[in-house]
Amino acid sequence: MQFELTKQFIEDLNLAVAEKNADKLDELLEGLHPVDIAEILDEVDLQVAQFIYRHLDEETASAVLVELEEDIRERFLASLSAKEIATQLDNVDSDDATDIIQDLPDYRKQRVLSELEDAEQAEDIVKLLRYDEDTAGGLMAKEYIATNVNWTMSKSLRELRKQAKETSHVYTIYVVDDERYLLGTLSLKSFLYADTDTKIKDLYRKDPISVTTDTPADEVAQLMEKYDLVALPVIDKENHLVGRITIDDVVDIIKEEAEKDFQMASGISERVDDKDSVWVLTRARLPWLLVGLLGGILGSLVIGSFDEQLEVLPVLAFFIPLIGAMGGNVGVQSSAIIVQGLANNSLSLDSTAKKVLKELGVAAVNGVILAFLIFTYTYITGSPIKLSLTISIALFSVIIFAGVFGTIVPLILHKQNIDPALATGPFITTMNDIIGQLIYFSIAWWFFF
Amino acid sequence: MQFELTKQFIEDLNLAVAEKNADKLDELLEGLHPVDIAEILDEVDLQVAQFIYRHLDEETASAVLVELEEDIRERFLASLSAKEIATQLDNVDSDDATDIIQDLPDYRKQRVLSELEDAEQAEDIVKLLRYDEDTAGGLMAKEYIATNVNWTMSKSLRELRKQAKETSHVYTIYVVDDERYLLGTLSLKSFLYADTDTKIKDLYRKDPISVTTDTPADEVAQLMEKYDLVALPVIDKENHLVGRITIDDVVDIIKEEAEKDFQMASGISERVDDKDSVWVLTRARLPWLLVGLLGGILGSLVIGSFDEQLEVLPVLAFFIPLIGAMGGNVGVQSSAIIVQGLANNSLSLDSTAKKVLKELGVAAVNGVILAFLIFTYTYITGSPIKLSLTISIALFSVIIFAGVFGTIVPLILHKQNIDPALATGPFITTMNDIIGQLIYFSIAWWFFF
Repeated sequence: MQFELTKQFIEDLNLAVAEKNADKLDELLEGLHPVDIAEILDEVDLQVAQFIYRHLDEETASAVLVELEEDIRERFLASLSAKEIATQLDNVDSDDATDIIQDLPDYRKQRVLSELEDAEQAEDIVKLLRYDEDTAGGLMAKEYIATNVNWTMSKSLRELRKQAKETSHVYTIYVVDDERYLLGTLSLKSFLYADTDTKIKDLYRKDPISVTTDTPADEVAQLMEKYDLVALPVIDKENHLVGRITIDDVVDIIKEEAEKDFQMASGISERVDDKDSVWVLTRARLPWLLVGLLGGILGSLVIGSFDEQLEVLPVLAFFIPLIGAMGGNVGVQSSAIIVQGLANNSLSLDSTAKKVLKELGVAAVNGVILAFLIFTYTYITGSPIKLSLTISIALFSVIIFAGVFGTIVPLILHKQNIDPALATGPFITTMNDIIGQLIYFSIAWWFFF
Repeated sequence: MQFELTKQFIEDLNLAVAEKNADKLDELLEGLHPVDIAEILDEVDLQVAQFIYRHLDEETASAVLVELEEDIRERFLASLSAKEIATQLDNVDSDDATDIIQDLPDYRKQRVLSELEDAEQAEDIVKLLRYDEDTAGGLMAKEYIATNVNWTMSKSLRELRKQAKETSHVYTIYVVDDERYLLGTLSLKSFLYADTDTKIKDLYRKDPISVTTDTPADEVAQLMEKYDLVALPVIDKENHLVGRITIDDVVDIIKEEAEKDFQMASGISERVDDKDSVWVLTRARLPWLLVGLLGGILGSLVIGSFDEQLEVLPVLAFFIPLIGAMGGNVGVQSSAIIVQGLANNSLSLDSTAKKVLKELGVAAVNGVILAFLIFTYTYITGSPIKLSLTISIALFSVIIFAGVFGTIVPLILHKQNIDPALATGPFITTMNDIIGQLIYFSIAWWFFF
């Protein structure tokens, strides 16, 4: 029932476009949701995509434009005239229109705005363009419906009918006073019950959760997620209602935030996917690899400073990867828990000292188990007891160090207003690797020399 | 304006409870959202939490119960009688009631169900309990409002008023026929316009996006996210409307899915946060550390098999961490991109061969840059050219291998219906570490011996 994009479908589409077969194209695209069409356009060559796009009816074309991936949309817009873009923008919500116009060069912005037929839409876009993309102002739409607290239900109904024409989805009705101060909300349910003479002031719910235009986007997302909100009113500094944010825009942010941490932990420095070019992918991956290289060089200096010991006891080298890997793993684990807690605003209120103490507990338990296992293994396979002791004590120490280090570093970064996710992944792994080797060889030196 | 939980607040609360000061408690909790109260109860000792809970009015108490963390809720429920639980469940939506009752032992489930005053609610819960938690059936609520396609607007209005009483939020009105087959949806907007005599059949939108009760939860989440849906109707195999899923329940799934990948990549094998006990945290972290330990032992065997070379040329040992770390980093990067693409269902339609070819491109560019840098560094710092060549060629080879390996493994796991996120993090790091050392020492052997 739901559309699934297949290679066969893309081939059929390419053929239809190559043959300029409009009927075939209509047949293929019939009944598809704009989201699906946008997905298709992401997948085909730009020229094919443009051909298909021009073939769409006006309303669908606008909806598809909203859903396109940003980089493809930019290339699309470059091939459209200001007049053509303006026609499309007249059909979409003000927040989507603002997102689209945002990325145009300034002179084109002005051209497109002056070509808009809907003067109110143009005015809304100009207002919305002033806000930073990553704030509530940058997320909100001007399409919302509001009623006056002093009106009756029947008067409200007449007014709301006018407003609803401009609004694609209605979730909540906002209640304002004569100054447009936000006072509360009216549920849609109340419309099913209310008498026409009832005054709004006797029906509405006070103290709505709201944000101001400069609230950061990630706080908006956290708030809507926490309180299960579908729509959130936005007010200015004087408490006037100026817009609303809907959950669909915020779902993307929630997901992006969570994925950003995953990518950071994996050593990828910008949002990429497998469709990006070799160049973009390289650019996203090289920075952390350079950090890793530097770490490897530092590691070589650490081990190099124990060259005499290595000459006497080359067997020490066998366990270098073990020490490095375990330090890295433990550090990533402990930092991941802190980073995720910080991102979700769900860390316990315990002091840093208490958090470190707990991590010491976890690291100690893991450390004892793993040290015991490696001691047993090396002893059974015939290592001298002094070597077995060296390796197992070093492993235990590295696990303790890495656990504590992984706990503290993201907390410090967070206090310095640096994204703590930077601390997971390559940075922690590299640091723990180096310091792990230092611990390992120092213990060996102490035992043997 | 929004509530923020502070240590001071918790102290005041503990004091009020210790003094059994009801007025103080009322003052502290006044105007708080149930979500905030649940957060507070998560933070205090169980006995204090229970005292506060019993102090809440019935409606708030039910709402708080829904929002509590699962493990705390279980301990709460254990201290309530079946009758008390039943009273609370009468106040909440059927999906939330089912979630709460789900975790009770079977004999208590029956007791609570028989104590429910609202017979319809009891029936709904029994129906919902049959579905797997991770399917659309397990997510849906029985509270939705629906109208018959053959009715007029005025008849619909009368019927919907009755239904809306039971439904906490109304987003969409579903349109069914006499057999309760799902036919379409009616927007709330149409209620603002419609004449009382208009037939529903002339107003509604056909072909709604829907899922069946056995659709997996992650597919539900992907669908709602992709099509920006706020509510999604659920049908049975015969196309009868049986429930609806709302976006707030799905936001949690979207977030959990993304976070699960992050935790897996960080080597944590179950969902934990920093509030969990040392025991739970250890249990979540030990498995991958054991894998790492095994990897370290295998690594020691690999290096051990080159012991003669190491004795002649101990300087080889200096670069063991570099080779290991770079192999690990590159592997994690390339697998992360594939894992995230698979999770988002957004991988390109390219064949595996084409994906590997692209990865080869990225790895080659990174490899050349990094190999050149390490060659320059070692050469300048006075290493013999043969050693510089060994290290840089080994580094290049390891990067190529790790990139391709990191691309292929998650694709293979996915084809075998194993969660590809397993492949990122410790597994890839460990494998690349071992194989990296093998490549490194083999190249050294070939060059020097």
